[in-house]
Amino acid sequence: MAPVRRLVVDVLKPHEPPLVEFTRQLSDVESVDGVTSSLIELDKKVQNVKLSIEGESVEFDAVEETVEGLGATVHSVDEVACGEQVVEVRRTPQD
Amino acid sequence: MAPVRRLVVDVLKPHEPPLVEFTRQLSDVESVDGVTSSLIELDKKVQNVKLSIEGESVEFDAVEETVEGLGATVHSVDEVACGEQVVEVRRTPQD
Amino acid sequence: MAPVRRLVVDVLKPHEPPLVEFTRQLSDVESVDGVTSSLIELDKKVQNVKLSIEGESVEFDAVEETVEGLGATVHSVDEVACGEQVVEVRRTPQD
Amino acid sequence: MAPVRRLVVDVLKPHEPPLVEFTRQLSDVESVDGVTSSLIELDKKVQNVKLSIEGESVEFDAVEETVEGLGATVHSVDEVACGEQVVEVRRTPQD
Amino acid sequence: MAPVRRLVVDVLKPHEPPLVEFTRQLSDVESVDGVTSSLIELDKKVQNVKLSIEGESVEFDAVEETVEGLGATVHSVDEVACGEQVVEVRRTPQD
Amino acid sequence: MAPVRRLVVDVLKPHEPPLVEFTRQLSDVESVDGVTSSLIELDKKVQNVKLSIEGESVEFDAVEETVEGLGATVHSVDEVACGEQVVEVRRTPQD
Amino acid sequence: MAPVRRLVVDVLKPHEPPLVEFTRQLSDVESVDGVTSSLIELDKKVQNVKLSIEGESVEFDAVEETVEGLGATVHSVDEVACGEQVVEVRRTPQD
Repeated sequence: MAPVRRLVVDVLKPHEPPLVEFTRQLSDVESVDGVTSSLIELDKKVQNVKLSIEGESVEFDAVEETVEGLGATVHSVDEVACGEQVVEVRRTPQD
Repeated sequence: MAPVRRLVVDVLKPHEPPLVEFTRQLSDVESVDGVTSSLIELDKKVQNVKLSIEGESVEFDAVEETVEGLGATVHSVDEVACGEQVVEVRRTPQD
Repeated sequence: MAPVRRLVVDVLKPHEPPLVEFTRQLSDVESVDGVTSSLIELDKKVQNVKLSIEGESVEFDAVEETVEGLGATVHSVDEVACGEQVVEVRRTPQD
Repeated sequence: MAPVRRLVVDVLKPHEPPLVEFTRQLSDVESVDGVTSSLIELDKKVQNVKLSIEGESVEFDAVEETVEGLGATVHSVDEVACGEQVVEVRRTPQD
Repeated sequence: MAPVRRLVVDVLKPHEPPLVEFTRQLSDVESVDGVTSSLIELDKKVQNVKLSIEGESVEFDAVEETVEGLGATVHSVDEVACGEQVVEVRRTPQD
Repeated sequence: MAPVRRLVVDVLKPHEPPLVEFTRQLSDVESVDGVTSSLIELDKKVQNVKLSIEGESVEFDAVEETVEGLGATVHSVDEVACGEQVVEVRRTPQD
Repeated sequence: MAPVRRLVVDVLKPHEPPLVEFTRQLSDVESVDGVTSSLIELDKKVQNVKLSIEGESVEFDAVEETVEGLGATVHSVDEVACGEQVVEVRRTPQD
C-alpha cells in the first residue's frame, strides 16, 4: 500500500516525560525521519501538543504505540499525506 | 481529453476506516500519485475531510468509486486543474 | 494583436456536466494549455465557478463558445494578461 | 530621461470594447511588453479597471492616448517605477 | 561614510508635474538607480506619495533638492538602509 | 537517541545580564550553533524572552542549566524538532 | 564568546541629526556591515526608530556609544541573534 509521508497528530500528554524527551522518543520510532512538537495549550495536568511527523514510510501504529507507551493519547489525526509525492494543501474559496 | 492534474474534493466519511487507512487506500488508486487528507470537522458519527489529490492524469471516477467503497461520500468537488500545465489560482479584486 | 496569456473568468454553470467534465472540456480548447476551476458557491440550480486559464495565445471567443456550449454563461471577465510577458499584479496603497 | 519600467493606472471604461479586446489593444502600444487588467468594480455603464503595465521604456502618453481612443479615461496613476532597476515597494511602520 | 543604499521618503507634491514626470526626474538624480512612486492619497491640491529609492550610494541632499525643485516637499524620511549590505527589516514581537 | 535540532523556549529573566550578554552566553553552550532571543514583554523586574535555538544535537539540559546559571527560568518549552530532518510545521484546518 | 550577528534595537532620538545622517554614522561603527532605520513614530521633540543591524560580529557597546554620542538613547533591545548561524524566528501556537 502507498506509504505515509507526513502526519499531523493532535496529542494529549501528561507533563512527564517533558516535551524534549517525549519528542526524542517519537523520532526514534524506526519509520520516522523527523518530528516537530508544538505546544498548543497546557494546564495543571496535561499538555496539548501538535505533532508534525515525516518519513519515507511512517508507520502510524508504531507512532501511536509509542505515544501511548509514554502515557499520552492520540486525540485526533489532523492531516495525512500519502503516495510517491507529498501533495501540498492550498486554500480554495470553499475553505 | 485533457488530463486532470489536481483535484480538491470535500468528503464525508464515517470514523471507520480511520483517516490514515482511508488516505492510503485512496493513494493506491492507479492514476493517483499523492493524496493529502485534511480533517475539517468531526462529530460523533462522521468526519468532514478535504482531499488534495495529484497525478499525471487522475481518474475522478476511480477516486469516487474508492471513496464510496470505503463507506464515504463526495460532498463537493472544490477545485479541478486540467491540461498540460497546472494553472495556479491567484486572488483578484473580485474575490 | 498581442496574445492573451492568462484569463480569469467568472462563470455560472448548471450542475451538469459536473465540474471535472466541464474543466476537461475547457482545457481541450485548442489555444488553452491549462485550466483550474474553483468552486465559489453552489445552490440547487447553479454553480458559480472561477476559471483561471493559461496559454501562449488564449482565444477568448473559443473559450466563451465552449462555456456556452456546455450550458453555462460568462458572468464577468475578472482579469486579462496580454503581451510578451505576463505582468504580475501587486497591491498598491490605492487597493 | 530615465525610462518608465512599470506603471499602475486606474481607468474608467465603458463596457465596449470588452476587457479582453481593451487589454490587447493596450499591449499593442509599441513601448509596452505586457499588460494585466484587473476588474475592480462594474455598474451598468462603466467598468473600473486597474492596469499593471510593464516594458523596457513605457511611454505613458501613448498609453493614455490609446486608453482615450478606446473611450475610456485615466482616473489616476497609482504607481510608477523608473530607472535602471525596478525598486520593489515594501511596507514600513508608517504605512 | 557608509553609503545609503535604500531610502523611503514621504512626499507632498502638487498635481503638476504629474507622477510619471515627477518620478522620471527623480530617477535622473545621478546617485539614483531606481525610484518607485506610490500614490497614498490625493485631494484637490496635493498628492501624498511614498518614494522608494535605491542606488549604490544615494545622495539624499540631491534627492531632496530635486523634490523641492519640482515644487514638492519631503514630509518625512521613513526608512534608511546604509552599509555594505542592505539589512532587511523583519517583524519582532515588539512591533 | 534522535538529536534535538531546534528548540523554542519561553524564558523569564531578570534585567541583568542584559539581553545581548544573555544571548551570547547561551550560544556558547557547546551543542548550540545559534540562538535568537526575541523580547516578548518587559516590566520593572523581569523580561519575558522567546529563545529560538538550533544545532546539530542541542542538549536541552545544558541550555536549561545555563539559563538558570544566568538567574533566569524556563517558563515553557514551546517547540522541539528532532531527527535526521527538521520537519516544518504548517497550518491545518484544525489550528 | 559567540559573535552577535543581528540586533534589533528600539531607539529614541532628537530630530537632529536627521535619520539619514544618524543611520550613516551608525553603519560606520567598525563591527557593523549594515543598518536599516525604520521610523516608528515622531512627535515635536523626538523620533522613535527601530534599528536593524547586521555584521559578522556586532559590538553592541560600540553601537550604544554611537547612539548616545548622537544624542539618542537605547530604549530596548528587541532581538539578538548570536552564533555560527543566524536562527530565524518562526511563529509557534504560543505566540
